[in-house]
Order: sequence, then structure tokens, then C-alpha cells
Amino acid sequence: MQTNEQLLSIIENYLAQAEFPAEPELLYAPIGYSLAGGGKRLRPMLLLLACGIFSDDLQPAMPAAAAVEVFHNFTLLHDDIMDNASMRRGKPSVYARWGQNVAILSGDAMLIQAYRLLELVPKERMQQVLATFNTMALEVCEGQQYDMDFECKTKVSVVEYMHMIELKTSALLAGSVTIGALLGGAPESDCRKLRRFATELGLAFQLQDDLLDSYGDERLGKAIGGDILEGKKTYLMITAMSHADEPTREILRTTYRNPTLDDEAKIAAVKAVYDRLDVPRLTEQQIEVRFERALSILDSLTVPAERTVRMREFARSLMGRKN
Amino acid sequence: MQTNEQLLSIIENYLAQAEFPAEPELLYAPIGYSLAGGGKRLRPMLLLLACGIFSDDLQPAMPAAAAVEVFHNFTLLHDDIMDNASMRRGKPSVYARWGQNVAILSGDAMLIQAYRLLELVPKERMQQVLATFNTMALEVCEGQQYDMDFECKTKVSVVEYMHMIELKTSALLAGSVTIGALLGGAPESDCRKLRRFATELGLAFQLQDDLLDSYGDERLGKAIGGDILEGKKTYLMITAMSHADEPTREILRTTYRNPTLDDEAKIAAVKAVYDRLDVPRLTEQQIEVRFERALSILDSLTVPAERTVRMREFARSLMGRKN
Repeated sequence: MQTNEQLLSIIENYLAQAEFPAEPELLYAPIGYSLAGGGKRLRPMLLLLACGIFSDDLQPAMPAAAAVEVFHNFTLLHDDIMDNASMRRGKPSVYARWGQNVAILSGDAMLIQAYRLLELVPKERMQQVLATFNTMALEVCEGQQYDMDFECKTKVSVVEYMHMIELKTSALLAGSVTIGALLGGAPESDCRKLRRFATELGLAFQLQDDLLDSYGDERLGKAIGGDILEGKKTYLMITAMSHADEPTREILRTTYRNPTLDDEAKIAAVKAVYDRLDVPRLTEQQIEVRFERALSILDSLTVPAERTVRMREFARSLMGRKN
Repeated sequence: MQTNEQLLSIIENYLAQAEFPAEPELLYAPIGYSLAGGGKRLRPMLLLLACGIFSDDLQPAMPAAAAVEVFHNFTLLHDDIMDNASMRRGKPSVYARWGQNVAILSGDAMLIQAYRLLELVPKERMQQVLATFNTMALEVCEGQQYDMDFECKTKVSVVEYMHMIELKTSALLAGSVTIGALLGGAPESDCRKLRRFATELGLAFQLQDDLLDSYGDERLGKAIGGDILEGKKTYLMITAMSHADEPTREILRTTYRNPTLDDEAKIAAVKAVYDRLDVPRLTEQQIEVRFERALSILDSLTVPAERTVRMREFARSLMGRKN
């Protein structure tokens, strides 16, 4: 079995050899640009690792691994239009570089290219893989719609938020591992378990992402406080709202658009509320619960423990834990 | 075998019973709205008629017939954003009614719903059907991109124009009949022939559409001259440009945006040029050539002539010919 670094380079090579027609240029150039933009290749890695739990032959899973990565990049392309986002992974977004119409249409072509890759799935698994892929893809759209709905909603509950990120973030991870497991020949019960594993991992990952945006992470050197300045309804904000009294809620609701405060002061004011309400610890607790639950599901598979070592390593490194 | 009217109502019933989740409403309501908007159901009709040439059992082709109609409506949804079109089939477009972000995302979900329907294709044909569907879908995107490219191009040749409409209009008809033939169990040579039949029919249909926009059709009661007022590069305009001397070209290029003329005068001026250059007759000739070629391909199939009667009738009625 390949190391995780080797797997990553197999994925990069497979994606790089995918050839797109040269014409019409404005349809296909943005697809190559988007796929060459890097990223962690998290979803194809999960798919191949899930396949590898049950089979030593990862070749039958390669097209599907590429398909989930192409699909993921398609969602980013269209999300950037909807969010009016000009940058993506340190480069101009397709939307910013080529304009809205090109981003819509090349995004559509990219979604179709993902299905094109599924043509190469072994015939006996094709129907199951297509069905799993479609469910996953629709769930991601549902999650994106709920996320946009939340922007205009005054009150979002923790339950609603968790449901949204389960669709927007976890569904793609859950679909990827399920497809990987199917292509590795996993029994149905293990497919279902791995699905739950990835769902919990995705929730832990998203909550950690929310936490790091406000409290930072030296390793990533990420700008701190972006979510607070946008007034985004993150897990932190929603948890704080649900614990705060009315005057404190008003602070949480209005600080980001308070014209008398500079950015630093806005971030400090909101974080002071978070700290007072113990939000960082509550979030960490939730992350821990989800992550531990994910790992314990891995233990319950019908395979010998050593077959899940790679997946466990990958999950830990994804969450920034030392292996 | 059902009459063409019966087939149409089978398609309408099948589409009407497709249930979409109620939530999130802004994702799924536009899909139902779009599919209930009517239209000729041209593509599923062609798919079922192609299947019916080879088999009396159309049931296995129903999901794919619905899929090509859902796909077609998806393209309209996104095209309306790109073209800034506020009306569609006499009702506000999804874009106009719900806004751009909803139109992008529910369009994406609709494209995925088309693939969802393909899950129901008989397993032994699934790979071929998926591959044909993907090729068709990408060609439609390519056609739309070329169409947008042409808006900014000063010179478009007749050859380039025919290539564009072959992708934008014919590809979907060609894909539909190919899938129908495959699901009817047609031999490969007949699949290829039907593909060419639909390609020629699509070209004839599009050229007739171009002609009717400027020269009208009492049966449709369509507004006359819309293409001229938009300065659109139609078959008529491109043919006229290729036959005109430079001063006449200048008239063709500038009349639609001439502020000293009212709409009626603009239309009259451009049509006077068309008439002088014999453009209507040249267009009719081209329509005739394509349509006759399509019908003669039908004659060359390996089936008894009576099996193609329905398809012939449908093609003739599509072109407004008496049966």
C-alpha cells in the first residue's frame, strides 16, 4: 500500500493527464486553471483510502477519485459567483478572471466532466456509484442553499447550522468514502459505517475551521477574524447567540457593521463576548466529540485494525493532530 | 404503438410525477416551475420515437426521455442568466423571478437531477447511455460558448455558424435519438444513422427558426424582427454579410443601433438588404437540403419502412409541413 504522500502524487498525476479540448477556449481553459490550483485533494484522498481499506488495487477507484475532486472544484467555481469572491487559493477566482458568464458555463462543463469520469467506473458498480454520486451532489447544493438562506435569516439554531454543514461539507466527504468503499468491494454495513465516519469527520473539520478563523492557527498563517468582520453565522456566532442575553446578542448582531469601530476593535469586541460565554471551549468540546466518534467508527469495521491505519493517520493530520 | 399525442401525454405524466424535496424551497421550487412551463417536449419525443423504431416497449426509455427534457430545461435556466432574459415561454424566467444565485444553484441541481434519472436506465446499457449523454451535454455547452463568442466577433463565417448550431441545437436532438435507439436495442449502424438524421433535422429546424424570426409565421404569431433589432448573427445575417459589398455590410452592421431609425424602419432596412441579396431563398434552399437529407437517412435504416412512419410524421410536423 502506498504512503499518503504517494497517493497524493498519484492523484495529482491522474488529474494532470486529464486532457480537455482546446476549443472553445473560454469553456475549457477555466477548468484546467481551476484544477491546477492546488488544494489538499482531500476528497480523492478519502476515496482512495476508503478503497484501500478493502482492496490493494486502487486502479478501479482512480476515475471516481478524480470525479469527486472535479466536482468539488465545480462547486467552488459556482460558489465564488454566488459569494462574489474574487480570490481562491491565492489566485483570482475564475469568476474574477473571466467574468460571470464564463464561470457559470465552464462550471457546468466541469460538472459534466465529473460525470464523464464516472463512465470509467467498472460496469458492475456503475449504478451504485452513480446513485451515491448524485445523492452527494444534490446534498452539497442543498447545503449551499441553506447557507445562503441563513444570510437573510435573523435566527439560526445550532441544530439548523449542524444540518447545513452536514450537507455542505460532510456530504462530499461521506459520498467520497462510500464510493471508495464500494469500489474496494466493502460489505454494505462497512459502507454505511464509513459514511458515518466521514460525516462526523466533516463536522469536526468544519467546526475547527470556524474556530481557527477567529482564534487562528500558526501553522496555516491564516488571517484571523474574517468571519467576524463579515458577520458570518458560524458555529461560534450561533452558539454565542444561543447563550447570550439580549443586550449581548445586540452586540453580536451589530458589531461587524458598526462604523465607529475599526477591524481590530470589531474582532476584539466579538471575541470578548465569545470568551465570556466560553464559546471556544464549547466548540473544542464539540470538535473532540465528533472526531472521537469518527475514529471509533473506524474501529468497528469488519477488517483487521492495520487496514485502517492509513485512514486514521490521514484523519488525524487533517485535524492538525500529530501522528 | 402509441400515437404522437399519446406519447406526449405519457411524457407529461412522467415529468409531473417526478417528486422533488420540499426543502430547501429556493433550490427545488424553481425546478418544478421550470419543468411545468410547457414547451414542445421535443427531445423526449425524439428519444421515445427513436426507441419505438426498434422496440414496442418504451418503458425502459422513459427515465432517459425525462432526463433529456430536464437537461434541456437546465440549459434554458442558465442561458437565461447569461442572456439576461427576463421572460421564458410567456412567464418570468427563473432568473427574473428568483434572482441570479437561485438560478445558478437550482440549475446545478437540475443538471444533477437529469443524471439522477439516468440511474434508472437498464444496467446493461448504462455505460453507453451515460457516455452518450455526457458527450451531448458537453457539446451543448460548447455551442453556447461559441454563441457567446460570436457576439464579440466582427466576422463569423457560415461554416462557423453551422458548427455552432450543430453543437447548440443539433447535439441535444442527436444525443436524444441515439439514446432512444440504444435503449430500443438498435444495431450500432442504425444508431449512427439516426444521429445524423437528428443532426440534419436540428440544422433545418434552427435555420427555419432564424428565417421565421425575420419573415414570420402566421401559425406561431411570433413577433417579427427580434433578431434584427438585437443585431444577432443569424444564418440570414451571416449569409447576407458574406454576399454583400462593403457599403451594404456597413448597413447590416449598424442599422440595429442606428438612433435615427425606429424599430419598424430598422427591420425594413435590413430585410430590404436580405431581399436584394436573395437571402430568404438561399436560406429556404439550405433548410430544404438539410430536411430532405434527414428524411432520406430514415429510409436507409435496417428496419421495415412502416416502423419509421411516426418519426417521419413528427419531423414533418416539427418543420410545419402538412402530413
